Amino acid sequence: MIRSVTRSSLLRNRVAGARLTRLSSSVAASYFPNEPTAPSVKTAIPGPQTKAALEKLNKSMDIPAAYFVADYYKSLGNYIVDVDGNVLLDVYAQIASIALGYNNPALIEAAKSDAMINSLVNRPATGNFPSNDYADILEKGIMAAAPKGFSNVWTALSGSDANETAFKAAFIYQASKKRGSGGFTQEELTTTMSNQAPGSPAGSILSFESSFHGRLFGSLSATRSKPIHKLDIPAFDWPKAPFPRLQYPLEANVEANKQEEKRCLEEFEKILTTWKTPVAAVIVEPILSEGGDFHASRDFFQGIRDITKKHDVVMIVDEVQTGVGGTGKLWAHEHWNLDSVPDIVTFSKKAQAAGYYFSNPELRPKLAYRQFNTWCGDPSKAIIASAIFNEIKKNNLVERTAQVGDYLFGKLEALATKYPQNIANLRGKGQGTFIAWDCSSPEFRDNFIKKAKELGVNIGGCGVQAIRLRPALTFEEKHADILLDVVEKIVASA
Amino acid sequence: MIRSVTRSSLLRNRVAGARLTRLSSSVAASYFPNEPTAPSVKTAIPGPQTKAALEKLNKSMDIPAAYFVADYYKSLGNYIVDVDGNVLLDVYAQIASIALGYNNPALIEAAKSDAMINSLVNRPATGNFPSNDYADILEKGIMAAAPKGFSNVWTALSGSDANETAFKAAFIYQASKKRGSGGFTQEELTTTMSNQAPGSPAGSILSFESSFHGRLFGSLSATRSKPIHKLDIPAFDWPKAPFPRLQYPLEANVEANKQEEKRCLEEFEKILTTWKTPVAAVIVEPILSEGGDFHASRDFFQGIRDITKKHDVVMIVDEVQTGVGGTGKLWAHEHWNLDSVPDIVTFSKKAQAAGYYFSNPELRPKLAYRQFNTWCGDPSKAIIASAIFNEIKKNNLVERTAQVGDYLFGKLEALATKYPQNIANLRGKGQGTFIAWDCSSPEFRDNFIKKAKELGVNIGGCGVQAIRLRPALTFEEKHADILLDVVEKIVASA
Repeated sequence: MIRSVTRSSLLRNRVAGARLTRLSSSVAASYFPNEPTAPSVKTAIPGPQTKAALEKLNKSMDIPAAYFVADYYKSLGNYIVDVDGNVLLDVYAQIASIALGYNNPALIEAAKSDAMINSLVNRPATGNFPSNDYADILEKGIMAAAPKGFSNVWTALSGSDANETAFKAAFIYQASKKRGSGGFTQEELTTTMSNQAPGSPAGSILSFESSFHGRLFGSLSATRSKPIHKLDIPAFDWPKAPFPRLQYPLEANVEANKQEEKRCLEEFEKILTTWKTPVAAVIVEPILSEGGDFHASRDFFQGIRDITKKHDVVMIVDEVQTGVGGTGKLWAHEHWNLDSVPDIVTFSKKAQAAGYYFSNPELRPKLAYRQFNTWCGDPSKAIIASAIFNEIKKNNLVERTAQVGDYLFGKLEALATKYPQNIANLRGKGQGTFIAWDCSSPEFRDNFIKKAKELGVNIGGCGVQAIRLRPALTFEEKHADILLDVVEKIVASA
Repeated sequence: MIRSVTRSSLLRNRVAGARLTRLSSSVAASYFPNEPTAPSVKTAIPGPQTKAALEKLNKSMDIPAAYFVADYYKSLGNYIVDVDGNVLLDVYAQIASIALGYNNPALIEAAKSDAMINSLVNRPATGNFPSNDYADILEKGIMAAAPKGFSNVWTALSGSDANETAFKAAFIYQASKKRGSGGFTQEELTTTMSNQAPGSPAGSILSFESSFHGRLFGSLSATRSKPIHKLDIPAFDWPKAPFPRLQYPLEANVEANKQEEKRCLEEFEKILTTWKTPVAAVIVEPILSEGGDFHASRDFFQGIRDITKKHDVVMIVDEVQTGVGGTGKLWAHEHWNLDSVPDIVTFSKKAQAAGYYFSNPELRPKLAYRQFNTWCGDPSKAIIASAIFNEIKKNNLVERTAQVGDYLFGKLEALATKYPQNIANLRGKGQGTFIAWDCSSPEFRDNFIKKAKELGVNIGGCGVQAIRLRPALTFEEKHADILLDVVEKIVASA
């Protein structure tokens, strides 16, 4: 962590210096000239209109976890508006999914384009009948944003889908390697139809304690965040390894944290090599988000890369939450500058509304219909993703997010010194706006989220008692000041 | 089958009589005044432009199963146009996914609407922050089209996703029933984090031989269509039951088919009650499509309903392919007129580009965050689905499809008598345009699909050696005549 922060800070300062004029102007003001200047709360949240709207919605669909019903026509930039007319600064951004703020004009333009209309109306079965413009959409939008070392993309429909198709690519890769040049055996062809080995072999995906990788049957088997996600659902008998629990501030705990990461890596390698079934792939988030915003150092992830290389196990980096700029790098794993890139990187949320994975070409199955489904992605979502990547580049939104993250972290550090009880284990230094801290109890945290809304900020939690920040890439110092004011009000009144 | 066909034919004739004038005019002509009047093939398929386009696409994404690259801007109505300028009558329709033909003006209008632009640009995390118009979109579009007996919908992102979230609802239902009024035990809370029982219990989903339910880890464990879908991917040890193999023509094999269905139902109940783990749900397609277009009678499905009721096992009808009008009913299971409706009905393809399930309210989990994910569906897709359902209703597209299906089946019956070798086991009578037959060999079938393209028809296969028809709901007698001409040319030249 220390090492990567230092390196990236240096790099960032160089970049920032070169682009000083552009970065100092407000991109939020240019996107959203009419963005509210402050929150405005008129009713309790949930308010009466939200309650009525939920009652109506409940007739068709069960939404027991709704905080409020939003009016997305009125929401703008970093502000979300609910049906009661409450205007909230949004630092949760649809569970880390809004990249460019609400009603961003560049996305509206993309949504109105002929390409969008065509792809919505004539959705192709891309695996059989791809559209003539898909190559361009992928090449100029998504592949232009690919992390170093990746030349290949698979388009899926959600983060869970991206992770599970990545798992499938890993299982197929491992089986093909073992099989060599031979074809499938008759026994394999027969047994797989009854879900039995050798056709459907016992194999596993290793994930880390407190990680979150999705909620379908494969991805849920790798998810280890909270019991409520997993209870009552059958799961594959897959292994989990410990993820470091670092002590904060990092500067004061260098040796202890080093030992903790060493312990976890040793345990990881032991589990990887001794698990009851062969481990095809390891999946890890750069920051374990849903599980509690746990971080580890660059050296820890390099350790994972070394061990997976040593045992020829596929390394999947799950950037469903961290991808697309929020950590101050376009891809969070770029902070690590690994000796060799991961095998697969999955992403979804801020690329808005589809799942993807980048991989190296070796992970492409050799035969048709192995990685396949009716749609194999969605051009309409790829058009939105491309527009997002292009805007990020044009307006230096990654560098901006790194800068505002540093500003925000500095201010929160000062607050943490003043209110150590409820801003404990402050983490995410040098990681853009991916900042989190622990409250004194789960109850205080839950109440924090509620109070923040009353004071005009829509904020999210994670893990047992953490607050996590996940604003859009259009979040600026002026928004940070409003957030900081609300945070202090809540912790000061505790 | 016999029984339901008779009943539905009677009903249809009554409806058709009442609406004779409207149904006799061409809805294709009114949607698509410039629709081509015939196919036009200029190059080999795949042609040189397709090959160049695939080479370009292949740099970013692996598409080994592509037949050709399509130009969706030029495609219109029932005709798909490829990048070489070949114009093909499309009776495959993106693997049964295009409901209203290419570039349908009603869908273009929906795609240009403010609601669409808003939902594309501000995609909500619906489970936490639903949009104020989602209740209306669901109520007026999707729920208005719900089959009798269903008051509840869950919005997902694909057919696989719809099926897997339905599985989860079933597992949660069964566990809650067993648990009664008590909460989770400490042991459950602990063990589920290691994927072990009792928190992650051993439980199963029963599916049928040759069925297809998707390709993610849970849905793939229920899929039993072809080895290539399943090989090398770990699967849950779930049971499969035999699905009847009926003999055709049905009229000449009444007793034998009755015995076959009886045998399958007995075996089904035996497996259901003796499987090594408790069966939470049974999933079945009304027509086993991908696996080979296998049908069964109304009595067989009533038998499944009776047995699942008897043992309180959830009955899921997978209408991902059959749903939305193609079988001559809006929902294929409506042909059965069961004594009590199924517990869950899943759908996706022709509702275009999202997955859903209808269920009864008992299948709603009692707690928040049990059925949940970042997006919980996609309003932009629900808008398209609503427009599709509304057009279907407005233009009587289900009744029209029933009529054109009867016309087509009659003509194919005549051809089958003339060429019994390569139009064998003709099936789908009274099932709209969901018609299929067997070729004399897998090679002949594969060659049939290739030759049909050369003669101007894009057609699909399924199972080992079947041809399946899956045109859009805008397919009419004039299109059927072109198809019939091409079919005869191919089988006559064999």
